[in-house]
Amino acid sequence: MENIQVHELAKNVARALREGKPTEAVEVLARLHPADRAEVFCHLDRADQNRLLTLLTPEEIGEILEYMTEDERHEVATRMELGTLSRVLDEVDSDVAADVLHELPRGEVEQVLSQMKAKERAEVERLLPYADASAGGLMLPVPVVLRPWMTAEDAINLLRREKPDTDIVYYLFVVDENDRLVGVVSLRQLVIADPDTPIGQIMDPQVIYVGPDTDQEEVARLMEHYDLLALPVVDRDRRLLGMVLIEDVVDVIEEEATEDMFRMVGLSEEERALGPVSQSVRLRLPWLVINLYTAFLAGWVVSLFEDTIAKVAALAAIMPVISGQGGNDGIQTVTVIIRSLALGEVDVRDLFRLLRKQVLIALANGAVIGTLTALTVLLWKGNAALAVVAAVAMVLNMLVAGIFGVVIPLTLKVLRRDPAQASGVILTTFTDVCSFFIFLGLATLLLGWI
Amino acid sequence: MENIQVHELAKNVARALREGKPTEAVEVLARLHPADRAEVFCHLDRADQNRLLTLLTPEEIGEILEYMTEDERHEVATRMELGTLSRVLDEVDSDVAADVLHELPRGEVEQVLSQMKAKERAEVERLLPYADASAGGLMLPVPVVLRPWMTAEDAINLLRREKPDTDIVYYLFVVDENDRLVGVVSLRQLVIADPDTPIGQIMDPQVIYVGPDTDQEEVARLMEHYDLLALPVVDRDRRLLGMVLIEDVVDVIEEEATEDMFRMVGLSEEERALGPVSQSVRLRLPWLVINLYTAFLAGWVVSLFEDTIAKVAALAAIMPVISGQGGNDGIQTVTVIIRSLALGEVDVRDLFRLLRKQVLIALANGAVIGTLTALTVLLWKGNAALAVVAAVAMVLNMLVAGIFGVVIPLTLKVLRRDPAQASGVILTTFTDVCSFFIFLGLATLLLGWI
Repeated sequence: MENIQVHELAKNVARALREGKPTEAVEVLARLHPADRAEVFCHLDRADQNRLLTLLTPEEIGEILEYMTEDERHEVATRMELGTLSRVLDEVDSDVAADVLHELPRGEVEQVLSQMKAKERAEVERLLPYADASAGGLMLPVPVVLRPWMTAEDAINLLRREKPDTDIVYYLFVVDENDRLVGVVSLRQLVIADPDTPIGQIMDPQVIYVGPDTDQEEVARLMEHYDLLALPVVDRDRRLLGMVLIEDVVDVIEEEATEDMFRMVGLSEEERALGPVSQSVRLRLPWLVINLYTAFLAGWVVSLFEDTIAKVAALAAIMPVISGQGGNDGIQTVTVIIRSLALGEVDVRDLFRLLRKQVLIALANGAVIGTLTALTVLLWKGNAALAVVAAVAMVLNMLVAGIFGVVIPLTLKVLRRDPAQASGVILTTFTDVCSFFIFLGLATLLLGWI
Repeated sequence: MENIQVHELAKNVARALREGKPTEAVEVLARLHPADRAEVFCHLDRADQNRLLTLLTPEEIGEILEYMTEDERHEVATRMELGTLSRVLDEVDSDVAADVLHELPRGEVEQVLSQMKAKERAEVERLLPYADASAGGLMLPVPVVLRPWMTAEDAINLLRREKPDTDIVYYLFVVDENDRLVGVVSLRQLVIADPDTPIGQIMDPQVIYVGPDTDQEEVARLMEHYDLLALPVVDRDRRLLGMVLIEDVVDVIEEEATEDMFRMVGLSEEERALGPVSQSVRLRLPWLVINLYTAFLAGWVVSLFEDTIAKVAALAAIMPVISGQGGNDGIQTVTVIIRSLALGEVDVRDLFRLLRKQVLIALANGAVIGTLTALTVLLWKGNAALAVVAAVAMVLNMLVAGIFGVVIPLTLKVLRRDPAQASGVILTTFTDVCSFFIFLGLATLLLGWI
């Protein structure tokens, strides 16, 4: 739905609520797809949201909750009365329920769980030990399992009997007499098979699976690499614990991309364009302070050459050209490396190939950019020695940027830190410090000619 | 599969090929999942790849091709003999075949098509008019359609008869007597329904669909928003043309995220960490030249104040602190806005709310960072007037960065350009020029006190 429609619908719902026509407000929402209903709901202000929460059934609230982002969901859940929350969580997928409970204070978790239905409560409790960002935190219970000795017809009859109430059954997992995962059958294979064929013959015994502690980024990478719609999660004895669905992984992929993009510029992934100001200030300020002092470090390098600058003030005008170009060149390299690491295209073993490539690129681009720099400075300032110093500093600085652009993210990777984290600020500090030192150092050495 | 295993396996295959043991090489590959087979293949050098292309059957080559990235696929396809290519394309999904043909010269397309099987050729020819990055370019033919008047049992018998040969049948689309899309049924619903129920009663008549020219980013957004596994593509009369699968959209989401990340720093999305040097040089150089001259623009602003700098060289040391902080602050804002636009969380109508927020953030962060700047400069240089000038310039510059960080991407959006494109370089130019002008201008005005 277009943003403009969401704004419009939210306005209509709010007006109906304020004019004392609650049924009209609920009807406007009821006509929408639950995904759009969630979006309109999140565009309302708190007072209207709270009024709606008293008007909707637990099932309706649950449906909206399923389609919210994690942050929105937590925010709404903490505002609900605990008894209502229990009834709502009875209605949602157990991974969503576990996710909501993870954000509540420990005492409240117990209270909410105690008021949930026995079956739903048991399912959620099995998921609670796992982190939200792990396979265990993403998985859903498997509603029906097959056995190798069943026939295709037995399996279809089982499905008819159990009537699993979600659309998640496109792969069916097969477990042996010890409940160990031994194969997978797609629902299509089951339907088109001769009814008497045993499952053991139709199933694919080469199942790809993960443990519950596998990181969600690895889960996403596996499902993308092998084009899977569902990935089984098993314990150490290969007993089936649950399965992760592609729908949930699509959100993970978006999240991880946002996270990398934000971390590169020192932002927290919690930051939202229209989130509260206080949150943005709190999230950004520490990083800005660090950045301030790394910038002062670069400034200190410049101050070492104040005597030179006092004699040739033109150096101050060329300084930002050299450092700007180095910073940009380095950021380009860092971005390529970070993304390739995230997509699993390269790893630390590729260090020397990556370095060799960046050095060659820096030399090729440096030859062109260095020549242009020399010509421009010569035309501008009419000072041949200054032009040569600027050009040499430019080429050296591009080499430095290329090398640091590879070494910094790979070093973070080796240290088991996220390569995206702070690569931007660390890199700019290195390139700034080096560029000022190289350029002003050269100028000081050759001061007699400039 | 771990990168290290891929390297190892590629080495084994290459050794077998060189030692004249082709069957051994083929066997190593045959033991792998096709996704891994494709990865190992792409790690071989060209000569070994060419040798393998003569050893594998068209079906085996097709299977590898399906799991390659677009670039890898094009590169391998252009090296194949046209007759072989026809037989390979007979084996792959028609969207993959269309994608390969889009990259061939027009004359060769005709030759390849003329040697393909009639049915496969017809399917590919239907897709050829659509751009790769549109719904039409991503869609696959729908293997089986249902009619509202069929019973669930009829539908299952139809599936048994047709035996669609792919796993893509988890949603079944329902069309009326004029072949117009009227509903959707999941295979699960079909299996668990009472055999006599007419499809018209089980189906969901509220189907979400797109036209063939819809951009792939919009396709991905819809499928993510509505949690869809398959999205039908229809013509103007709502007749079913094909369907887009979630597996293919996962790749689109990765691609679009990479594209945004790369464009922000002026990189082309074609750039690969281990791609050829010449390509990186060609892709990066034009941008570096533009960047060089925007940096010279900032340098020119500095040169306007050379007299001031010659008198107080300490200004040159503080300059990079002010500009660096403004650039970083602006890049953070730009990144949040670009990502929110890409995910459809905000649009141009939110301009004033976004501006208001950034101004408040800049004032709050500016108060802290400005104070720290003043104190640090005072302690470092012992010059109170210089400290005040630096602090005021810092706060003003953070305001400027916040405002440009919102205005630049939204302006690009209004101009129907990609907001991510070159936002980084444009923004840094603005913040650098403003920061030098504000800081050195203030210093010049107050020169008597510094």
